Amino acid sequence: MATTVPVILCGGSGTRLWPKSRSTKPKPFIPLLGDETLFEATLKRCKDRVQFDRPIIVVGEHHLELATAQAQAIAPDALFIVEPVGRSTAPAIALAAQAVDPHAIMLVCPSDHRIARNDAFREAAGHAAALASQDWLVSFGIEATAPETGYGYIRRGEPVGPGYAVRDFVEKPDRDTALRFLAEGDYAWNGGIFAFRAGNFLDELARHRPEMAELSQAAFAKGERTNQILRPHGASFTAIDGESVDYAVMENTDRAAMVDVAMGWSDIGNWDTLLRERRPDADDNVIVGPGEIIGARGSMIDSDGPHVTLIGVDGVVVVVSDDDILVTARTAAQRVGEARRCRKA
Amino acid sequence: MATTVPVILCGGSGTRLWPKSRSTKPKPFIPLLGDETLFEATLKRCKDRVQFDRPIIVVGEHHLELATAQAQAIAPDALFIVEPVGRSTAPAIALAAQAVDPHAIMLVCPSDHRIARNDAFREAAGHAAALASQDWLVSFGIEATAPETGYGYIRRGEPVGPGYAVRDFVEKPDRDTALRFLAEGDYAWNGGIFAFRAGNFLDELARHRPEMAELSQAAFAKGERTNQILRPHGASFTAIDGESVDYAVMENTDRAAMVDVAMGWSDIGNWDTLLRERRPDADDNVIVGPGEIIGARGSMIDSDGPHVTLIGVDGVVVVVSDDDILVTARTAAQRVGEARRCRKA
Repeated sequence: MATTVPVILCGGSGTRLWPKSRSTKPKPFIPLLGDETLFEATLKRCKDRVQFDRPIIVVGEHHLELATAQAQAIAPDALFIVEPVGRSTAPAIALAAQAVDPHAIMLVCPSDHRIARNDAFREAAGHAAALASQDWLVSFGIEATAPETGYGYIRRGEPVGPGYAVRDFVEKPDRDTALRFLAEGDYAWNGGIFAFRAGNFLDELARHRPEMAELSQAAFAKGERTNQILRPHGASFTAIDGESVDYAVMENTDRAAMVDVAMGWSDIGNWDTLLRERRPDADDNVIVGPGEIIGARGSMIDSDGPHVTLIGVDGVVVVVSDDDILVTARTAAQRVGEARRCRKA
Repeated sequence: MATTVPVILCGGSGTRLWPKSRSTKPKPFIPLLGDETLFEATLKRCKDRVQFDRPIIVVGEHHLELATAQAQAIAPDALFIVEPVGRSTAPAIALAAQAVDPHAIMLVCPSDHRIARNDAFREAAGHAAALASQDWLVSFGIEATAPETGYGYIRRGEPVGPGYAVRDFVEKPDRDTALRFLAEGDYAWNGGIFAFRAGNFLDELARHRPEMAELSQAAFAKGERTNQILRPHGASFTAIDGESVDYAVMENTDRAAMVDVAMGWSDIGNWDTLLRERRPDADDNVIVGPGEIIGARGSMIDSDGPHVTLIGVDGVVVVVSDDDILVTARTAAQRVGEARRCRKA
């Protein structure tokens, strides 16, 4: 079987991890767990050159420097596709698909997720590639371990090879629906990881989003390319009406499949989920940087300098980054994007 | 009637208002409410030279510079008694009592309390002076408006002149006892404000604490004095076993009296009480300095620089001062002194 081309998408802004994640240095490029950034970890996960080919990294112009610097040691041969503006995932993948052989299998990976078990990831990538080589468009169906309302779900259909046909893609459910999904057991989380042949993706895009397919073709054809950097044609790419790969292709194709995977995945969508990934102590607290917690449980301090003393508040996250201090209830962590300073950052 | 000599005690450390209040610049000397410090407000309250004489300020050596700088514009003629070490309030008052005529009436005032209604204070000071001139040792009995467990209480006895004889001094009660005091109506808060003739105080001290009286006499006699600064003899003063005026004198004398006063008093004992003095907005929040509060009630931000964003946490206080950040539940505000950084500060 042919090797798989990792396509690493670096478009996420990660505003809900403000003030650590900022537009100048967003979520994929900051060390949130240990010393490594999520982007570096994503590249390392696809480093094995038996299973994986030279990676393609799709990144915004503003973050090219960060991405090249962090990729240097791990994937010095990577191809960078530089977006002049963000247009969501479908156009980004369309550019990458044109940069490789139509028969090549692409493995699309967000650069800002946490995956604890790389062996499970690689095994699922193998299964997905096997299905993709049979012309399926494959989603990773991530084991649903909690009634999450922040993720989309995928419902399993008939077994196909090492996976299943997809019966339904389901939008973020409410709490009761999520509980039902968990009880029924037919649903997995949609983690935004996909595998398909480049040609199959472009065919489906042309079928379901002809205008996007045309504009991204023009953007690629009229773009500039060196050995390591591809810059699409600005006017053509900017003219695209941005849309996610889920909406534009996966939910429309007749050839949607999925592979099950349990790999310790988290999208680290906000400070609450990050806290849970960070191995709390006996009092269920986490301290990163200089700090002290007195008489509180389930709380976190993350400071890049000033000392934080937290007293008597359960379930709160305190983040100090540059000249900003965020104090948020874990239950309100998804509201961080509402902060005036976050919207300006 | 003779004028009253204000004796302003500056010994409080105010550790529960850390990190704003620090040993280098403690509670009386920082502007906690508006632009004025509590020390400045205390001096202004006793500024009227018909009712009050030249004030005596008792202050620790480390804070003499702060005190003289802040007193300069309000009471340029003040006498400073400089303590080499803190020995609580009774020895401080004993020094001041020796610096004035034995018949003079002293009005002892802490320098770190908030009093909203100066007219009520001055009226009570007049009543207290009238009782003191009849050789009573007089406490301000502050109207108890809540079942506070953090204050001592005074129980009214028989009416005497414009006040009452004191029936009992009561230690800080538990919650149920405080509720009973409030219901019975015979109890007032002991705010640490006293009036007595200097000679009467020294007589009572000699009777009930002969050793302290002797040592403070030696400290005064062997001290150094200029027109504005009095430094007691270090070895004598340091040898004193420190004790509050309540324990050493007021609870032992047969001549304890009290005057009622309702003057919008608060000891601003911690961040919770300070928040209440600071006029919360419609959501019951307070913001001092750069900050934003989203989806929370009854919370406060107080920052000397960095911007604070608070989301979804009710009843919390966030204080940023120098290189320290404190996040405390209002209900845990009395635990601030437990913080490692506070104990070191």
